[in-house]
Amino acid sequence: MLKKYKYEELTAADLQQLVLRNTDPNQAIQSAVFEIIDNVRHNGDKALKDFAAKYDQVQLDKLYLDQEEIESLAATIQRDQQRALEIAFQNIHKFHSSQTKRERVVETMPGVKCWREPRPIEKVGLYIPGGSAVLPSTLLMLGVPARIAGCKEIVVCSPPQRDGKINGFVAYCLKLLKIERIYLVGGAQAVAAMAFGTESIPKVDKIFGPGNQFVTKAKSLVQSLTNISIDMPAGPSEVLVIADETAKPSFVAADLLAQAEHGADSQAVLVATDSNIVDAVNEELMKQLEVLPRKEIAAKAIANSYAVITKDLKSAIHFSNLYAPEHLIIESDYWHMVTSLILNAGSVFLGHLTPESAGDYASGTNHTLPTSGYARSYSGVSVDSFIKKITFQSISEEGIQQIGSTVEILAELEGLQAHINAVTIRKEK
Amino acid sequence: MLKKYKYEELTAADLQQLVLRNTDPNQAIQSAVFEIIDNVRHNGDKALKDFAAKYDQVQLDKLYLDQEEIESLAATIQRDQQRALEIAFQNIHKFHSSQTKRERVVETMPGVKCWREPRPIEKVGLYIPGGSAVLPSTLLMLGVPARIAGCKEIVVCSPPQRDGKINGFVAYCLKLLKIERIYLVGGAQAVAAMAFGTESIPKVDKIFGPGNQFVTKAKSLVQSLTNISIDMPAGPSEVLVIADETAKPSFVAADLLAQAEHGADSQAVLVATDSNIVDAVNEELMKQLEVLPRKEIAAKAIANSYAVITKDLKSAIHFSNLYAPEHLIIESDYWHMVTSLILNAGSVFLGHLTPESAGDYASGTNHTLPTSGYARSYSGVSVDSFIKKITFQSISEEGIQQIGSTVEILAELEGLQAHINAVTIRKEK
Repeated sequence: MLKKYKYEELTAADLQQLVLRNTDPNQAIQSAVFEIIDNVRHNGDKALKDFAAKYDQVQLDKLYLDQEEIESLAATIQRDQQRALEIAFQNIHKFHSSQTKRERVVETMPGVKCWREPRPIEKVGLYIPGGSAVLPSTLLMLGVPARIAGCKEIVVCSPPQRDGKINGFVAYCLKLLKIERIYLVGGAQAVAAMAFGTESIPKVDKIFGPGNQFVTKAKSLVQSLTNISIDMPAGPSEVLVIADETAKPSFVAADLLAQAEHGADSQAVLVATDSNIVDAVNEELMKQLEVLPRKEIAAKAIANSYAVITKDLKSAIHFSNLYAPEHLIIESDYWHMVTSLILNAGSVFLGHLTPESAGDYASGTNHTLPTSGYARSYSGVSVDSFIKKITFQSISEEGIQQIGSTVEILAELEGLQAHINAVTIRKEK
Repeated sequence: MLKKYKYEELTAADLQQLVLRNTDPNQAIQSAVFEIIDNVRHNGDKALKDFAAKYDQVQLDKLYLDQEEIESLAATIQRDQQRALEIAFQNIHKFHSSQTKRERVVETMPGVKCWREPRPIEKVGLYIPGGSAVLPSTLLMLGVPARIAGCKEIVVCSPPQRDGKINGFVAYCLKLLKIERIYLVGGAQAVAAMAFGTESIPKVDKIFGPGNQFVTKAKSLVQSLTNISIDMPAGPSEVLVIADETAKPSFVAADLLAQAEHGADSQAVLVATDSNIVDAVNEELMKQLEVLPRKEIAAKAIANSYAVITKDLKSAIHFSNLYAPEHLIIESDYWHMVTSLILNAGSVFLGHLTPESAGDYASGTNHTLPTSGYARSYSGVSVDSFIKKITFQSISEEGIQQIGSTVEILAELEGLQAHINAVTIRKEK
């Protein structure tokens, strides 16, 4: 049962409290993660093998699987499963391909030409969680934009199973992505290995991927300790569903539960334009929850969630903008009237037939999205995340005459004589 | 005099050593900065006024200047200075305006439509250094893309002068940007104020701007303590100049010194295709250095720099890609033959008549750029830095039939039954 709040009755302080997420519950593990990083940094492969023995219960001779081993694991999955992964791959590829654009040259003054060109980040590291949760979809979500961007080296790390291998679904995705090696390293140690490099594992320029709190903490630590960058800070997954009188309570409940089953710390917020809608959804929630295999987890997440009642769709969007949800679902016939009001969200699902599940797996959009309110300033992962845009400029003789005195005056203001000289010497040539 | 190294004779380890920058020399000030942040967080405006008295030697009654005060300060500068700031503003505006693009809707499967829409980051904070160095250009470089992006609230902080005012050049830039208030706060306390908010100063979603080591450390700390994001990590400024036999040694030397005068920790690297070029540049360096007002600073930076000799332009670019310079200048008739080989750089200046000074102030490109090797994975500031791209999707009845079973199979692989239900319930409707 979702607790109910009335939007109109909430004070600014209440609202702040409601939209607050625990952005860093992991200070407690900081020193443990720091020790892991330090160990990998100094002992390289040996540390990684020791961690595999300790945490993954497997003795590894080598820290990776090569192409042949990947091929044979990929061959173990069923044809319809292969086909589903192929369709997801194609849709993700099609959508992300639309994100690369050439930009035009701008002549800001006669003879002063400026432009930007994209360049791939050369070496990227993708962390794919393993263990109990197998996430082939995450490999597609990170691997496809990395391939489209043209990254030269794509380092994939995932924890080994007890048999020293990886899951066949992940192997099949590697095949689709034409990635010929996977490193059998999980947790904070994988992040450390990609940040500093070991005998087996190349150092990368940027690290991507979700993970448990150790992985998340390790990413944030290497970001502050090195000049490696990371995709984004990560917190528990979350959805905000907006429902009006046209919404089907059973669909709404199904979407809230799809979020809730991710983990007890997930949040599934309902914003409804009438109190009756919340009651109807609560009824459906109880019914659908009962038959879920992960019902204990989902029930905890629901207990950790709430419903807000607003007077109309517009107010519902206002609350959503304050919350800045990772996923926003608008279950209304009138969604096209409010999309322009959406300011803060990771990914938005419009209408009655657009479940978050579609975007989680196969519609083509990326599922690596900003959580915990980061949607106020971060975008989800896209091809942009795997490139830099370098600015270029070229000035002609006419150009240096045109712009020269402006630069000289401005450098003078800031008291930088050598900046002036660099222009004057060219003007007077 | 620049030390000389021969590229062909350097080992991989030598190269690693040469391109290494000190990415975080500021661990020592961490606890001092943390205390400042904590003080501002708990004592708000009072802490800010105390810091102004202590560090800026000024008693402030109110923590900002309003439109009228800004207007009257802006009126104090000369007409040619106003004109130079206007031209810079226009060029920066023209170039950055080319960075906003509408993207198309992609139908990844029949009935499955996906697209991205840009949204401004609502509240941004711009830090403009003050004190001895006055940086109106930085205000233009941050304010223009923020305006183009459409940010609703632009909070500008800059340390007050002894008279409790700000410099007229900064005031004039505020006028050009139609920003009606400036907060008189500098240093780590300004970053803390924008991250947590005080009685006078609004909390923002993202903080931009350069600063001394206290500012830089404060940005990195608030990034890890809150869900505020920052433009990029910052280190000392740097240039790498590539020169071949067509280069004019006097121009090359002028560009190296324009970098060197920024600070003793700046780095100015020369990569030349012949040892004689280095000798000629060294000779010019000594000559031009002698007459600089900031010659002591520049001489220290030059002592902290070096020259690398490569066999050709292509090898020079290879070294530059390893170094990943903030600024790259290619002084060669043949620059157009090598631009496609450039992989890692912040901003690139092409040909004999394109000094970095032009881009620092007025050509139109941004001067807030990745230093310390961050150009491997970061872009400079652009309109992109002030927006998020939100993904949207809308699925029709045909679409859910088309994509439904793929999503069900993939959710099944990952063991997420509620994800399956959210699709099945819609397919079977």
